Amino acid sequence: MLESDLVKANPKLLVFIPILYTVWSDAILTPSEISTLEGLINSQHWLTASEKEMLLSQLNPTTPPTPDELMNWRSAIQQVADPKNKNETLVNLGIRLASLQGDGTISDTLLQARPSLSKIESILGLISHEAIFNFQKGRKTITSEQATEQNFNVRELTKILDGKHSDLIRKVKTLLSDPEFGYVSPGDLDLYRKRVLQWCKFLAEQGYGSMAYPKEFGGQNDMAAYFAIMETLSYHDLSMVIKFGVQFGLWGMSVYLLGTEKHHAKYLKDIGTLELPGCFAMTETNHGSNVKGIETTATYNHQTKTFKIHTPHEYARKEYIGNAAQHGQMATVFAKLILDGKDYGVSALVVPLRDKKGKVLPGITIKDCGRKMGLNGVDNGVIYFDHVIVPKENLLDRFTSVNDEGKFESPIASDNRRFFTMLGTLVGGRIGIPRSGNSASKSGLTIAIRYGDQRRQFGPEGGTEVPILNYRTHQKRLMPLLANAYALHFSLEYLTQRFLARKEEDMQEIEALAAGLKSFATWNTTTTLQECRECCGGKGYLSENRIEVLKNDTDVYTTFEGDNTVLMQLVAKSRLTEFRQEFSNMNVFTILNYVADQAKTTITEMNPIITRSTDEEHLLDSEFHLNAFTFRERDILTSAAKRLKRHIDSGMDSFDAFNVCQHHLVQVGFAYIERIILEQFIRQVEATKDVGCKMVLKKLCDLFALSQIDKNKGWYLEQGYMEGSKTKAIRKLVNQLCWEIRQDAVPLTDAFNIPDACLSAPIAVSQK
Amino acid sequence: MLESDLVKANPKLLVFIPILYTVWSDAILTPSEISTLEGLINSQHWLTASEKEMLLSQLNPTTPPTPDELMNWRSAIQQVADPKNKNETLVNLGIRLASLQGDGTISDTLLQARPSLSKIESILGLISHEAIFNFQKGRKTITSEQATEQNFNVRELTKILDGKHSDLIRKVKTLLSDPEFGYVSPGDLDLYRKRVLQWCKFLAEQGYGSMAYPKEFGGQNDMAAYFAIMETLSYHDLSMVIKFGVQFGLWGMSVYLLGTEKHHAKYLKDIGTLELPGCFAMTETNHGSNVKGIETTATYNHQTKTFKIHTPHEYARKEYIGNAAQHGQMATVFAKLILDGKDYGVSALVVPLRDKKGKVLPGITIKDCGRKMGLNGVDNGVIYFDHVIVPKENLLDRFTSVNDEGKFESPIASDNRRFFTMLGTLVGGRIGIPRSGNSASKSGLTIAIRYGDQRRQFGPEGGTEVPILNYRTHQKRLMPLLANAYALHFSLEYLTQRFLARKEEDMQEIEALAAGLKSFATWNTTTTLQECRECCGGKGYLSENRIEVLKNDTDVYTTFEGDNTVLMQLVAKSRLTEFRQEFSNMNVFTILNYVADQAKTTITEMNPIITRSTDEEHLLDSEFHLNAFTFRERDILTSAAKRLKRHIDSGMDSFDAFNVCQHHLVQVGFAYIERIILEQFIRQVEATKDVGCKMVLKKLCDLFALSQIDKNKGWYLEQGYMEGSKTKAIRKLVNQLCWEIRQDAVPLTDAFNIPDACLSAPIAVSQK
Repeated sequence: MLESDLVKANPKLLVFIPILYTVWSDAILTPSEISTLEGLINSQHWLTASEKEMLLSQLNPTTPPTPDELMNWRSAIQQVADPKNKNETLVNLGIRLASLQGDGTISDTLLQARPSLSKIESILGLISHEAIFNFQKGRKTITSEQATEQNFNVRELTKILDGKHSDLIRKVKTLLSDPEFGYVSPGDLDLYRKRVLQWCKFLAEQGYGSMAYPKEFGGQNDMAAYFAIMETLSYHDLSMVIKFGVQFGLWGMSVYLLGTEKHHAKYLKDIGTLELPGCFAMTETNHGSNVKGIETTATYNHQTKTFKIHTPHEYARKEYIGNAAQHGQMATVFAKLILDGKDYGVSALVVPLRDKKGKVLPGITIKDCGRKMGLNGVDNGVIYFDHVIVPKENLLDRFTSVNDEGKFESPIASDNRRFFTMLGTLVGGRIGIPRSGNSASKSGLTIAIRYGDQRRQFGPEGGTEVPILNYRTHQKRLMPLLANAYALHFSLEYLTQRFLARKEEDMQEIEALAAGLKSFATWNTTTTLQECRECCGGKGYLSENRIEVLKNDTDVYTTFEGDNTVLMQLVAKSRLTEFRQEFSNMNVFTILNYVADQAKTTITEMNPIITRSTDEEHLLDSEFHLNAFTFRERDILTSAAKRLKRHIDSGMDSFDAFNVCQHHLVQVGFAYIERIILEQFIRQVEATKDVGCKMVLKKLCDLFALSQIDKNKGWYLEQGYMEGSKTKAIRKLVNQLCWEIRQDAVPLTDAFNIPDACLSAPIAVSQK
Repeated sequence: MLESDLVKANPKLLVFIPILYTVWSDAILTPSEISTLEGLINSQHWLTASEKEMLLSQLNPTTPPTPDELMNWRSAIQQVADPKNKNETLVNLGIRLASLQGDGTISDTLLQARPSLSKIESILGLISHEAIFNFQKGRKTITSEQATEQNFNVRELTKILDGKHSDLIRKVKTLLSDPEFGYVSPGDLDLYRKRVLQWCKFLAEQGYGSMAYPKEFGGQNDMAAYFAIMETLSYHDLSMVIKFGVQFGLWGMSVYLLGTEKHHAKYLKDIGTLELPGCFAMTETNHGSNVKGIETTATYNHQTKTFKIHTPHEYARKEYIGNAAQHGQMATVFAKLILDGKDYGVSALVVPLRDKKGKVLPGITIKDCGRKMGLNGVDNGVIYFDHVIVPKENLLDRFTSVNDEGKFESPIASDNRRFFTMLGTLVGGRIGIPRSGNSASKSGLTIAIRYGDQRRQFGPEGGTEVPILNYRTHQKRLMPLLANAYALHFSLEYLTQRFLARKEEDMQEIEALAAGLKSFATWNTTTTLQECRECCGGKGYLSENRIEVLKNDTDVYTTFEGDNTVLMQLVAKSRLTEFRQEFSNMNVFTILNYVADQAKTTITEMNPIITRSTDEEHLLDSEFHLNAFTFRERDILTSAAKRLKRHIDSGMDSFDAFNVCQHHLVQVGFAYIERIILEQFIRQVEATKDVGCKMVLKKLCDLFALSQIDKNKGWYLEQGYMEGSKTKAIRKLVNQLCWEIRQDAVPLTDAFNIPDACLSAPIAVSQK
């Protein structure tokens, strides 16, 4: 039984044990709290003066109880604790403890003293509540009990994700699981690059490289399949994906789409088999996103019917060129076409770099870009041309050609327009990259979510530790990103379909879609993998768990194929074009009409009952979500257009006006793309027949929609589109959805169906 | 002169050239725009039917002008363009063009036709405005003209930053610039680790390692200097910094602060010279942030007066231990102290790992953690103990000891309290890490800002390309982060001072400060370096430019020394403790009083004139900023406390209640820390005497304050603390401040005074 000076003094003093234990075991009481406690003890009229003194001595910081004493107190209290009593108090615990000791009179005295005892307890506030729970053994909480459930058929969801390419996807996954595809350390660049080249050869052997080329040149004429392959490969090493993309996508497709029959016949087959490794030499040191500004020249000589390719100065060298440092034998080189001293803008030519044995040709200098943040299996290089001569037929002459008289010809008169048309044909890269990035997000989420489901840390005192995925902050970090990965999967599929079915007149829209989705998706990949890294703590920092590799390899996706910020402005400009007619004779009336026209229910939405509605049915209504997104899209576009016009009307240079509004324009791009993503996600939910899958997808879609609204709530509140009560209700609902989706989170990553050999992370695989 | 079918038909038709050029050079007119154009041409009554036909044919998409024709149009228009005319129109350009050709009658006809011509132009809207600007040669815009200025004395600012340690800092920088400190590739782990060890030896030779130790053990007893050294070293390789920190900070300081005289005498001197490399073995595979849960045991045997150190199972192994994989000869091992079968909680003991020759001792198994995201120059390892015996005196016995009777003794009775006191002594790590991280931020910002100041991309047509730092989005990405780096510099200095002058009763506050600032600062480092990477595009991806290295090395700082999310909750709990007394008898009245008390001007602030005020003087008033931050801090704390109480009162387990409010609690931590940072920044501005420095620091402080308010505007609007008009005005002011600070941005990074040898990035150094 409990030994204590108190017991010796008077067993009834045991009533104070739970309070004293709490005071001593919790770290810090403020001096004013201590003096309040002392005052309250002094005011306990049922205690004698010596009992009071005894008690007060127990509060003296210079004479603490011994560690063993404290341990004994604790176990004594635990014996009288009642886990089922929701309204337990330290005083009641104390009364029970004291009652065990003496005769019945103790209880009576103490019950009478209860009100004044309770005053003491109230000083401790929250601490006393916590202490009471902490006395329970084998404590179970809602938080500890949450766990993975099976609410839907994982295989069905995989089918929905894979769509009509599921057979091909399965084949690719099987290939990637072959031991030949075991990962390589990035420590030794040379070995790593060799391995990556070898992997690409294996893929070429399967016919994957030439998948999108015409049948007569060894391909299958199946661009959709090519994208599916690229996406699936992206569960594996991303250097391999980029090397694959450089060879078969950039190099091959530039020959295919910018060249004509003669080029196809001469090169495509060898490109598809990787017999002819090549590069896509567009970017220069001084010109990345501003491709129009490149300075490499291709000067035509009509006497010899040749072009002279030349790097006019150090900063006009081609830079970051994949396949250049070691393996590339040829390159599509973008250069300014010069005829008779006139500059006809950017064209592309095929230029040999190395002979079959890999020896660099005369006039060409190549440097290695060396180690990079990631993608170290790709041999990026810098290329200089010193008056390199190539025959006239090396000009990829679909859009720019030189006629027999040595004059420039083009089906497109305007430099500007020709340039954008040329680049437009290469928009496929802006589809492949975000799809690849989204696969990397899926890998990261699979690893982090499986780990979070297993990893336990902290827990209720007296209970077991809790899986970290049960913590609300952990859920809020990962669940919205899981929703994003699904959302992007469907909208990237939509973009792909639009691209495959493209017509001339759709191109502007498709390019805006691709630019916007590329930016949104690749930024999302960066954010997702960063969050996954942190959510896996030290384990996430180890290379063996692959999150860091995924993060570092995909980090440049936000720069590749056009810097995201630049692309978002292109999207905005494209949106403004559509808006142009209203813009030229804008007044308040037309703007209101415009907004009202486009977002039909806007007017209804703005009525006060709706701006305040916190009704859950309303908040989970996809129509409400889409209205909110559409309203935002239109309103931001309108206000950006108004601002631009105001500045230009005031005499500001248009370049300055665009700069002043630049941040606003980026928001125009975001608002547009977010609406597209939501629209496609809603469409997918509606099209889903399997009940379980439909339900879980609806939840993810709701989470995507409400997370975005929550993120933009400042804007919605500023516009008066919502009131504070509504945005608060939305925040609460986001937390609730995160909590609910956590139960489905592991199956939702299982549905990505990423091969264990690809994931490879011990923290994600070993637990299975 | 201009050759054209139009001229041949009738010179006056030249008036249409600017419009036609604009239509053809800009990519896309919608079909409805084309038909509107056609209609408007048909309605030009001053044209003959054949002239109309002629003109309409020029709009036919199947017969575009040739590229040469378009070029000629352009140069003809450029010749009549007047760059000074702010109200230029395409019609006026056309009239001038036509007038050059014919007799005076042309002008008259055209001037009369102007109104109906203007209708055509208006269709083009924004495009026509842009086109007009684009015809100007040598065009200069406000955007292109912006450039670096010298508005303050850089040396003075460096002095302010360096404070009283400027001599020491200069010495360290000189040392780091020595060729011996040339960077090493992370490709070969072994070489890299050897080099890092060698660097640490050089630092030890200078007496930097033992700086904080007592003089009798070879030190200078100067903790402040130690922090200044650590911060300065962080401009160099961060593996070196962490290795340095593990050896002299974690290993040395744990012996110093957890041990007693006998340990100091035996070990400190050799630790300070790096004669005795050691580890800090706290974290276990299953227990990282939850240190209290570690499972390694140290079981006392009173007969032999020894402890037996043991790893009870696979997941209780010590993990990620720096210095363990290769160099460590001893370790401070944290283990549960077991006496007589009773568990007395976490203690620390000195345990030998290797002999002097580096051979691992019996009973010890060490594995290498292998490659990591970064810090690959640090040899992190996994340690297993198999019944390893150490003598009793190896117990670091400042807080836990075993007396001569073999009984446990401690000056602190409560396990909990003892544990937190022990960890509290180690709070220095939570100061060193954020200071190191902030140095990395400064390096990243220096590189990205210098690059942005030089790198040109895009520009007004006809003008030169523009430094990318002149673009508003680029400014908005980097300037607030530059303000953060300054803000954190001062608040970390404040934290350091508080720590150095610490008294027992301040420890709770100092620990909360350290935990909060560590989290805020290290997250800020991650964000900053990610942004810098993207802002440098492809150049940022190359390892030679070091941003990626800085990012990857510091990424784990958010995990180190306690996971940031966990730490922010500790901060919140500490804040709740202060709030406890109000909490226990909370009602609306006391809450209002509390908030009003703490944030004096709150009531004034909430009056409608202030909630709406967009007056610039008010918005740039530091008192307004501090009031807004303080209001937020108090309100979030109050509402979190209310929520917790509501849940607990409803019978919810306290563990669940904390989980439900977890996200809210993290916000409590943020709001507190942000207020501290702002307060210290304001204090620094007030204390600055140099006028130029004071002005630029005030701007940075304003930007910090307003960026944070802008980030949290959703919250302020929800609370009704501000109205939409005010938050919009703040957003505008943030953009304006970014624009203004851009001019000071390069000098502001110069003031960090980071040695070129440390920066090393070609994009930051070569331009000088």
